[in-house]
Amino acid sequence: MIKISFPDKQVREYEPGITGLEIAKSISNRLAKEVVAAKVNGEIWDIMRPIHSDAEISLHDFESDEGKHTFWHSSAHLMAQALEHLYPGVKLWVGPALENSFYYDVDLPEGTTISEADFKTIEDKMLELARQKNPFQRSEVAKDEALAFYTEKGDEYKIDLIQGLEDGTITFYKHGDFTDLCRGPHLPNTELIKAVKILSVAGAYFKGDEKNKQLVRIYGVSFPKQKLLEEYLHNLEEAKKRDHRKLGKELDLFTFSQNVGQGLPLWLPKGAALRERLEQFLKKVQKKHGYDPVITPHIGSKSLYVTSGHYAKYGKDSFQPILTPDEGEEFLLKPMNCPHHCEIYKARPHSYKDLPIRYAEFGTVYRYEQSGELHGLTRVRGFTQDDAHIFCRPDQLKEEFIKVIDIVLYIFKTLDFKDFITQISLRDPSNTEKYIGSEENWNKAEQAIQEAVAEKGLKAVVELGEAAFYGPKLDFMVKDALGRKWQLGTIQVDYNLPERFELEYMGSDNQKHRPVMIHRAPFGSLERFVAVLIEHTAGKFPLWLAPEQAVIIPVSEKYNDYAQSLLKILNNSDIRTVVDERSEKVGRKIRDNELKRIPFLLIVGEKEAEDGSISVRRQGQGDTGTFTTGEFIQIVNKEVANELEANEI
Amino acid sequence: MIKISFPDKQVREYEPGITGLEIAKSISNRLAKEVVAAKVNGEIWDIMRPIHSDAEISLHDFESDEGKHTFWHSSAHLMAQALEHLYPGVKLWVGPALENSFYYDVDLPEGTTISEADFKTIEDKMLELARQKNPFQRSEVAKDEALAFYTEKGDEYKIDLIQGLEDGTITFYKHGDFTDLCRGPHLPNTELIKAVKILSVAGAYFKGDEKNKQLVRIYGVSFPKQKLLEEYLHNLEEAKKRDHRKLGKELDLFTFSQNVGQGLPLWLPKGAALRERLEQFLKKVQKKHGYDPVITPHIGSKSLYVTSGHYAKYGKDSFQPILTPDEGEEFLLKPMNCPHHCEIYKARPHSYKDLPIRYAEFGTVYRYEQSGELHGLTRVRGFTQDDAHIFCRPDQLKEEFIKVIDIVLYIFKTLDFKDFITQISLRDPSNTEKYIGSEENWNKAEQAIQEAVAEKGLKAVVELGEAAFYGPKLDFMVKDALGRKWQLGTIQVDYNLPERFELEYMGSDNQKHRPVMIHRAPFGSLERFVAVLIEHTAGKFPLWLAPEQAVIIPVSEKYNDYAQSLLKILNNSDIRTVVDERSEKVGRKIRDNELKRIPFLLIVGEKEAEDGSISVRRQGQGDTGTFTTGEFIQIVNKEVANELEANEI
Repeated sequence: MIKISFPDKQVREYEPGITGLEIAKSISNRLAKEVVAAKVNGEIWDIMRPIHSDAEISLHDFESDEGKHTFWHSSAHLMAQALEHLYPGVKLWVGPALENSFYYDVDLPEGTTISEADFKTIEDKMLELARQKNPFQRSEVAKDEALAFYTEKGDEYKIDLIQGLEDGTITFYKHGDFTDLCRGPHLPNTELIKAVKILSVAGAYFKGDEKNKQLVRIYGVSFPKQKLLEEYLHNLEEAKKRDHRKLGKELDLFTFSQNVGQGLPLWLPKGAALRERLEQFLKKVQKKHGYDPVITPHIGSKSLYVTSGHYAKYGKDSFQPILTPDEGEEFLLKPMNCPHHCEIYKARPHSYKDLPIRYAEFGTVYRYEQSGELHGLTRVRGFTQDDAHIFCRPDQLKEEFIKVIDIVLYIFKTLDFKDFITQISLRDPSNTEKYIGSEENWNKAEQAIQEAVAEKGLKAVVELGEAAFYGPKLDFMVKDALGRKWQLGTIQVDYNLPERFELEYMGSDNQKHRPVMIHRAPFGSLERFVAVLIEHTAGKFPLWLAPEQAVIIPVSEKYNDYAQSLLKILNNSDIRTVVDERSEKVGRKIRDNELKRIPFLLIVGEKEAEDGSISVRRQGQGDTGTFTTGEFIQIVNKEVANELEANEI
Repeated sequence: MIKISFPDKQVREYEPGITGLEIAKSISNRLAKEVVAAKVNGEIWDIMRPIHSDAEISLHDFESDEGKHTFWHSSAHLMAQALEHLYPGVKLWVGPALENSFYYDVDLPEGTTISEADFKTIEDKMLELARQKNPFQRSEVAKDEALAFYTEKGDEYKIDLIQGLEDGTITFYKHGDFTDLCRGPHLPNTELIKAVKILSVAGAYFKGDEKNKQLVRIYGVSFPKQKLLEEYLHNLEEAKKRDHRKLGKELDLFTFSQNVGQGLPLWLPKGAALRERLEQFLKKVQKKHGYDPVITPHIGSKSLYVTSGHYAKYGKDSFQPILTPDEGEEFLLKPMNCPHHCEIYKARPHSYKDLPIRYAEFGTVYRYEQSGELHGLTRVRGFTQDDAHIFCRPDQLKEEFIKVIDIVLYIFKTLDFKDFITQISLRDPSNTEKYIGSEENWNKAEQAIQEAVAEKGLKAVVELGEAAFYGPKLDFMVKDALGRKWQLGTIQVDYNLPERFELEYMGSDNQKHRPVMIHRAPFGSLERFVAVLIEHTAGKFPLWLAPEQAVIIPVSEKYNDYAQSLLKILNNSDIRTVVDERSEKVGRKIRDNELKRIPFLLIVGEKEAEDGSISVRRQGQGDTGTFTTGEFIQIVNKEVANELEANEI
């Protein structure tokens, strides 16, 4: 018998040679129906693959990352099979699963092409082949066998791949009449694939090298249920509507200019004001929590980054040094704020009683990204981090970590990100020599993070070996309204920079000690955060953050004067208000302003002008009644206060 | 008879050959006693020099810039004369008047030196010679005569000077036994110089070229009354105490680091918070006055500055371009925010109804300065402008100008700069072709500025030919508590950038028009403004701005608990408070905290802890009584509100 351990620490005994699917069946029929992959000792396996010795196992359905990965990997094979049927002589290169889809790079036979018009044919062929319920069969093959197979088939791309592999490690997967060089894992059979969609087609150079032949990359996605595909397509459509680049333009939040430079956002008035509100919001929390503001320049002498180690590591691939006339100096655009903050720490001597010291700066940093990689506000060349660096004693680490987690949670709650998980990145325990800092400090820090996360009751995955070389970290991943995951805030322990900058404090023992540094940025960057917020809310920001909180809509030009007097009152009460004085019909004005995502639409006509009242429509809710100006101001103030204070820490 | 016009537009008739001094006498004896220089048709003249034809004249006493210039120029001659007496064989190069002193560059005879120990001897000799009441006599000399004079005297430096001059333009000035090549003007005689002080001695290369011989530069200052010298020396001492570099360190406001780079300030927590208060203060005013915030990156593509014309003009002497790996792009650190704001203006079409548009940004810019030129926060390589650009129609220019003046005056008043003058810089009317923009627009703009200044009742000097090539401007010069002048805010009209960036708006005539741009920065830069504010207030900032508003001083450790509870209450009431818990005597703690310029010192002991009260000392005023916590909070809030609102616009 072999011992199989489960994630809940249970251990069961099975006959050697049992498969993941059989184990699932032994637990419940329902599980057996849904499981598509097994993780065996940390590696994803086919659920049909026999297990011959003691193992840790977890079983995964389509909803899990592991399940999707397996499902889409098999779907890539299915698509390749369909292509071989439809385009005889097609040659294959590679076909991996991605986070949200899969693709296959193929070399089509001379004279054939694939365009959107062909997608339906491919989808139909895939479904037809899927229904054959062909099992995916794994086999180990010798290198010369593998080469012989593809030489006969005449596929130079696979031959090139095999030549790079070691004999004894090569596996083929076969289903029906299709065989592929592949590491797996795969589904038990093709019939699980019930719904497919070819998404797009693009060019891709063989081995990513533009000197090589351009192949055709076909993207697809697939699901175990038609309903899931429909949901996916709906979300895709919704995501397009919520694209922050589109909404950013429609809502006048930001723009780009070729003359300024790619990836360098220009914040328009409404966007700049929104960003300023986010900054003030965080500044207020930070002040309350003992952070001290600092302000540092956007450049630093090259020697600063030689000291920090960044120059040696990233210098060549960064914005290049800035020279000065005659004086032979070299400066760099700052890619991060930490070296500057270390210099501030160093400017004064510190005692153990002064710690922790928390320097906070909305620091704009510049990092070179290739122009092809740039994307709206999520991938830019200049961005502003809501950065802070905490310099503390090792014994203060856990408490500081908890305090930072509190701030991050407050921000997520106030901005309505209900769904998030955390990832704790620790050392690779089998390779501890690649990390800087003492064993004792690492143990303390890793324990501190895990305890802090546990005390806060956070969902967390622990990833061994994912720590930075300078310290362990905690990352926050939020799910937006469409279920997409975004990495936002981060908290990182750092033993490296205090060492490199020779930071010190005088301990209670009258000896010099090295402080620990924590890097933290709850938003991550304002650019990225605003982008995610736009897509999450579809531009319907919380009231406290909305660029315009109310629009006054006079039912005809006769009431423009009343609208103007109302405007003054509301703006003086710090309610961001505009008037729509266009000579359009009221219905049209309501529609247009709903599109602008303005939370309150204030309709004023004869009755309102006489009473000094306002008819209030709430965005998405319709009429909510008639109020006096004073009542309306109270409604807005109360809602804003509630948004900001409900989760206050 | 010739006609002499005075600044008040009066015209009087005099005999040809009349001197400035005689004209002064014809007005009043007192004026005649005080006048030291005359401005004749825009040029400063000796008051003894005869006037032969109609002229515009103004008479200047020592208090005026013109008077000081003349006085110190004559004093430089007097010092040179003293040096010739004390160091026979000394050779002279040049000896100009500066804004606050004068110097002479001399080549001392072999084997002699001048050090501080010699200053008294030089001063005494100068006063002895001054008492001889030698008149300064002007004479025109032919070039060969001049050369012969200095060849005989053996002064190669003067010979070098004369060789560069044109025959017919050379004048000598002689007083007593001393003759100098000089354009003048000078005092009537040496006796007016009643008090002198040699300030310092330094090396200076002949012609400023380090390949030439190093001469000795001797700095001095002089006055018509001993009392004025004493005042000057007192102010010099006071200025040293108020030096913002010294106070900036003592008050923990900012620091510099060689590793970050020279001239790149690092704002420490207290300085950063102070700066943030200044920003929020101005942001509030700007919001009220219809400014829209924007945020732009700190770099821009080189092409942006080619478009703006800055690259051609300043590129070579600036921070050099930033290259990117592989992509061949070139970026520049932004030296100003205007090109970015022009790009934002261009991002959307505009109608005449949208104007004026006012984009405001606290924009950090970088300008290369030679390291030798750097000085604390007043001469830096990176600074943050309180910048805004107003895009308006030509007919809106005057109104916009008045509104900007209102903001500048509000700021000056709130920050207690009572004494300031403005300078209106207009075109050189004799050379209008060197300016960009139509005659009509220039006339309109120059008139608008002058009318705006007149309507606001500002003291202004008009300088012809001082306008920028792109438009006229208005500068604000404040006098600080020591009477030193600082250039702060500026308002500039610009016809050039709208042209270069092809900015447009759709007029009411349905035609495209070009807007006018106004650049304005009331503080100038936050760095410079804070420096001036430190020196003006000697670090005793207005209460609303003070880094710490109150310090609690427990009379002994027994009352530390009460102090801590008080601290919480005050900080929660947004009164920036600290506690001095050191186990020092109360007197010592009071002295130390007064040195820190904390406005309120709150002494708490047995009585206060029992009553829940506070004994309040006001910085510089001593005891002001005992108050309840609530009363004290009211006192602070009232004073802050009064400071901020008294001059509100």
